[in-house]
Amino acid sequence: MDYKASGVDIDAGNETVRRIRTLARSTFTPGVLSDIGSFGGLFRFDAGSYKDAVLVSSADGVGTKLKVAFMAGRHDTVGVDLVNHCVNDILVQGAEPLFFLDYLATGRLSPDVAERVIAGMATACRENSCALLGGETAEMPGFYADGEYDLAGFIVGVVERERLITGRAIHPGDRLVGVPSSGLHTNGYSLARRIAFDHLGLQVDSVVPELGRTVAEAFLEPHRSYLAMIRPLLDRVKGMAHITGGGITENLPRVLPHGTAAIVDTSAWDVPPIFRWLEEAGRVPPDDMRRTFNMGIGMILVVGRERADAALEELAARGGREARIVGEIVAGDTPTVTYR
Amino acid sequence: MDYKASGVDIDAGNETVRRIRTLARSTFTPGVLSDIGSFGGLFRFDAGSYKDAVLVSSADGVGTKLKVAFMAGRHDTVGVDLVNHCVNDILVQGAEPLFFLDYLATGRLSPDVAERVIAGMATACRENSCALLGGETAEMPGFYADGEYDLAGFIVGVVERERLITGRAIHPGDRLVGVPSSGLHTNGYSLARRIAFDHLGLQVDSVVPELGRTVAEAFLEPHRSYLAMIRPLLDRVKGMAHITGGGITENLPRVLPHGTAAIVDTSAWDVPPIFRWLEEAGRVPPDDMRRTFNMGIGMILVVGRERADAALEELAARGGREARIVGEIVAGDTPTVTYR
Repeated sequence: MDYKASGVDIDAGNETVRRIRTLARSTFTPGVLSDIGSFGGLFRFDAGSYKDAVLVSSADGVGTKLKVAFMAGRHDTVGVDLVNHCVNDILVQGAEPLFFLDYLATGRLSPDVAERVIAGMATACRENSCALLGGETAEMPGFYADGEYDLAGFIVGVVERERLITGRAIHPGDRLVGVPSSGLHTNGYSLARRIAFDHLGLQVDSVVPELGRTVAEAFLEPHRSYLAMIRPLLDRVKGMAHITGGGITENLPRVLPHGTAAIVDTSAWDVPPIFRWLEEAGRVPPDDMRRTFNMGIGMILVVGRERADAALEELAARGGREARIVGEIVAGDTPTVTYR
Repeated sequence: MDYKASGVDIDAGNETVRRIRTLARSTFTPGVLSDIGSFGGLFRFDAGSYKDAVLVSSADGVGTKLKVAFMAGRHDTVGVDLVNHCVNDILVQGAEPLFFLDYLATGRLSPDVAERVIAGMATACRENSCALLGGETAEMPGFYADGEYDLAGFIVGVVERERLITGRAIHPGDRLVGVPSSGLHTNGYSLARRIAFDHLGLQVDSVVPELGRTVAEAFLEPHRSYLAMIRPLLDRVKGMAHITGGGITENLPRVLPHGTAAIVDTSAWDVPPIFRWLEEAGRVPPDDMRRTFNMGIGMILVVGRERADAALEELAARGGREARIVGEIVAGDTPTVTYR
């Protein structure tokens, strides 16, 4: 009995590492000191550029959006989702990314699929000036169905301590600026898949008239990164929420200080067709929609009332023309969101 | 249709976060600025303590050792494995851990199981003075079999640049110091399970006479951390290899500079019973054994010949009495390991 007979192919693993190495190198920023394949990734931290540096770190997955990628046989977008999700998660505290690592686990490793997944990550890493510093590719026989894999990402960024965005300065009267999402991002896919595939009986390549494209195209639209658009505004933002699992309902309160609450005006923006279609086709109650999907708002910035219009103008100048004032901060006992 | 009907239980997720928060707080070191539940974990980097700081980062999983945990219904050891694996991976470059994040993915979330898994991580984090800074707990219906989960860990540590252990100074005549493993650590479980469960037909609670304990006890022995034992020796070590997947055969060459190779004397240490038992029961060829398992050596230090005895004494004083000189560096065209 040998290791290959037990379902693990060390040679396929080595071939994958070889392909990943080239992709990862394309993302290397000046801080990177190591190559892919060393035990740990090395990143020189330029401490002289900070008075008091805070490292900001986050771990994330892509969730069951992966299932849509498997059904469509399309593996180049989920890596983009993963990186951008992580970038946004540390951006809300004011951090810019330094480096990223991934975990890719599969039952039987296909170097081709692994390469396409990592290529997506590398593309997004380059776009965010974030080094793909390392990762783990695990072949785990009996864990994953044929052709399936799971994916996790880990990001480290940095922010000057005095520029940390904490939400502490938020007070009643502040405005909520909603920045458009590019689609479902990486949340709500268990429900969305159930509606599209189980309830409506659609295939991934079925064209949805309401959306003007196939289910796969609509569902695999990559999670956008807000780094380039929002970075110039960071010193004028009091708090920021990345609208992921739990929707606005659960994510906005995470950044609100005690004594405040949020009112969100659902008429302030046009909910994109994909959400309306899912709501109607699945007869999903509005509260569940808002607790599951981003409803077209991928990021919410909390800004002082007097700065709201300027923030909209700045966002508009960087591709965020559909950003809107979507509500305001009020006094409240516990941080919650009320829709009106 | 709502989200719970689609298989995702946001309330179970929130309950899990509540339990994890207490565990994570028990690991917090002075650098931690955030609590669990914020978008990103915040870690104040004490740049003043370093002339030129290098961040060292690694991602890892536990592999199919998890299957043994599932069979045994024991969930408190795999988190220890994960953290210690990561700690060792950055230790080989001389780094000490700062913080750790985890990714825990499951089909249907059990807050009890998640709590036990994270409790193992928290224990190991405390023992390594490493903050459990954050993580992602993902419920992914249809991805994992009932009662199963996957687990990935990400660690960030730091080392002064001039103290980085690179292997560059390794030259012929240097000695290889082998430090004992505590068991299989986290590698080779696909083969080990196949031998024990498929070939021998054992159950997890079967007592193996050759081992004097059950399969579960032997297979779930936690991956040890070498941080406390090896840290005092770091300034005298030229190179270090963590013996993980691929065994000594594939891991030792990762730290050897061009122009060198390694000779490993297999008679220099006693291969522990678990490896002999697997080799005989599975009729595994010796080369496959060495390319799959650590064979009782969890870490190899490369030290100058004149320092080898002192290194053994220092290791012995810290619980490494079974550390041995297991070979030496010779001249060679490409970094490889030859057994004799």
